[in-house]
Amino acid sequence: MNKRSIKQSFTVTFEYDVHFTADLFAAENPLLAQFFANKTAAATPKLLVVMDGGVVEYHRSLPEKIRAYVSETGCVELVDEVMVIPGGETAKNNVHVTDSIIDAVDRHGIDRHSYIMAIGGGAVLDAVGYAAAVAHRGIRHIRIPTTVLSQNDSGMGVKNGINFRGKKNFIGTFSPPVAVFNDSSFLRTLPHRQWLAGISEAIKVALIKDADFFEWISRHAELLHNRDAKAMEHLIYRCAELHLQHIAGSDPFEFGSSRPLDFGHWSAHKLEQLSGFEVLHGEAVAIGIALDSTYSSLAGYLPYSDSQRIVDVLQALGLPIFHSLLEIGDIGHPLLTGLEEFREHLGGRLTIMLLQAIGNGMEVHELDSALVLQAATALQQRVAAIHG
Amino acid sequence: MNKRSIKQSFTVTFEYDVHFTADLFAAENPLLAQFFANKTAAATPKLLVVMDGGVVEYHRSLPEKIRAYVSETGCVELVDEVMVIPGGETAKNNVHVTDSIIDAVDRHGIDRHSYIMAIGGGAVLDAVGYAAAVAHRGIRHIRIPTTVLSQNDSGMGVKNGINFRGKKNFIGTFSPPVAVFNDSSFLRTLPHRQWLAGISEAIKVALIKDADFFEWISRHAELLHNRDAKAMEHLIYRCAELHLQHIAGSDPFEFGSSRPLDFGHWSAHKLEQLSGFEVLHGEAVAIGIALDSTYSSLAGYLPYSDSQRIVDVLQALGLPIFHSLLEIGDIGHPLLTGLEEFREHLGGRLTIMLLQAIGNGMEVHELDSALVLQAATALQQRVAAIHG
Repeated sequence: MNKRSIKQSFTVTFEYDVHFTADLFAAENPLLAQFFANKTAAATPKLLVVMDGGVVEYHRSLPEKIRAYVSETGCVELVDEVMVIPGGETAKNNVHVTDSIIDAVDRHGIDRHSYIMAIGGGAVLDAVGYAAAVAHRGIRHIRIPTTVLSQNDSGMGVKNGINFRGKKNFIGTFSPPVAVFNDSSFLRTLPHRQWLAGISEAIKVALIKDADFFEWISRHAELLHNRDAKAMEHLIYRCAELHLQHIAGSDPFEFGSSRPLDFGHWSAHKLEQLSGFEVLHGEAVAIGIALDSTYSSLAGYLPYSDSQRIVDVLQALGLPIFHSLLEIGDIGHPLLTGLEEFREHLGGRLTIMLLQAIGNGMEVHELDSALVLQAATALQQRVAAIHG
Repeated sequence: MNKRSIKQSFTVTFEYDVHFTADLFAAENPLLAQFFANKTAAATPKLLVVMDGGVVEYHRSLPEKIRAYVSETGCVELVDEVMVIPGGETAKNNVHVTDSIIDAVDRHGIDRHSYIMAIGGGAVLDAVGYAAAVAHRGIRHIRIPTTVLSQNDSGMGVKNGINFRGKKNFIGTFSPPVAVFNDSSFLRTLPHRQWLAGISEAIKVALIKDADFFEWISRHAELLHNRDAKAMEHLIYRCAELHLQHIAGSDPFEFGSSRPLDFGHWSAHKLEQLSGFEVLHGEAVAIGIALDSTYSSLAGYLPYSDSQRIVDVLQALGLPIFHSLLEIGDIGHPLLTGLEEFREHLGGRLTIMLLQAIGNGMEVHELDSALVLQAATALQQRVAAIHG
């Protein structure tokens, strides 16, 4: 029996800039034109723009503004059509949405050296990013996240995804963008609930990585709650920085089991699903953070006073810390079902991030069901005490 | 205007072994069991096997053999179902085929730490590879190529793809496998036309990279034509080695415009499409090699005697060097249309590999239409002279 083998090994480098700006498409803002000018190309590349319907509602003149910017600067060849797709989970729930983008790629002769620009919330970035990742085996994509949540978290990450047969992110890839532009002017028109909800991803990353940043958030809770633009810009910058450092420094394409950025997320996934996505991702994460912080202290990892402080900050920001859908129901406790589903979703060994100090995460491979329920009950009672 | 930016940069390492063996699923062959044993895992991982219908036809007992191997060695947890999907371009033409694999991933709880094994020709590996790449953002996939073509070329590459609205490989990703097993026993049952056609990818890589290998092929043309197993094993090993070195040493995910391994391919794509895939990929590549070698010599890059030798070797192997579908038709010359389509497909700058010597490729960015037609005519006359 002939037995030989060849070891194949190679590395691929991914590089992209995350820009923080305001009014990206204002005639006097050279940032986007510079981006295209810096990309040496034989010919002017094509650009297909796909926008979130929710954004267009608040920014009716945006397509015209983009056309004007591009025609003024001549930086890129904009295809005639500016696509608008439904915002929120709808973008990810319907394969026709991604197919319509792939059709547009075909119709407009968009190739691997052209660009697709997604402007919108996290769901729209996810759906467009997926279409861009698979059409022609990957078209360069530019992300312009328009929500607090996407500007400080998913917008600069490397993942995309759509839902399949109702299962969240069942299909997707790891495909870094070629550039991210965080434009603060989109945040001004954000509904208040979304403004607040996005803050929870910043709290999450502060709690596992940066105690000083958590202190800063705590001191600026009132400003942030009252929509102070400068405070929000700082929050987003620091949060993006921590997320980007984390991605670059660990396992960007998640070959292993460890997913530290999923702190507070295992129960959040379940709650979002139970609520039919009526609970926003950021709200569910706030509840997940409250739960896992409380658990950390009940399990003896984190001082009790620290878990109390965390819940205090969440509440000072107007974020929820419990939801009645997480109460015990007819088919058992939804939290325990959620934990099991998370185990399956991760695959391999269950790995859950907890806290051993504010700013210092720790991973465990098992959660004690009784303590999970005790943590949930403590939060439920705290909410009842306030509202009661 | 607040203007800051963060530079993101990281590298991802991809590693996999390409094994050369015979009778991979024979009880006495420890290779596959060793592969799973070497992967440390908390629990025995699951395995979903997807087979090419064309392979099952010649290897009826294969599903049983795999079950016996796995149950004997206990190396992995085989899910109850061994999937069989249609072979050839059908696997890639119908999105229901890939959806059925993703459904199986869901049904059997296949996660990112489980395995999907594809057994079949290049088209089946492409379709299964695509489904594996996008389900859960990537499930570990093992490739078992069963044809000469896929064992020495696409099977150990990093690309997958399916067709979309009739356009070849319009959708796909770059997703390296976790292992490739080249099992020579599958080649014994290969129809003769497929056996021969696969050799053209070896000629291609020899011509652009390794003059000695071309000499070897030339000396062994008769043995190869007469299905000598040892000669074919050597051909596949050396060809795989050259392909793997090329991928690792250059631009594995093809971010640039250069695609040296596409030597002879621009016209091949057009011919395959015109023939409704009746002409095999390897046959079309043989014709493409003849055309681009002849062009190289007409353009003054390659000595005339070398282009004649190349065509001689192709013919000695029983490979075609011209096809009547490439003659001028009502809507202009199909070769010139094909060149334009290839330019669009590549995007950016047209880059075509030609030869400046046997074993030494060179890239050009323009082809002279008149010389392309002259090369085609020369080959057509050569065929006519033989058959006339």
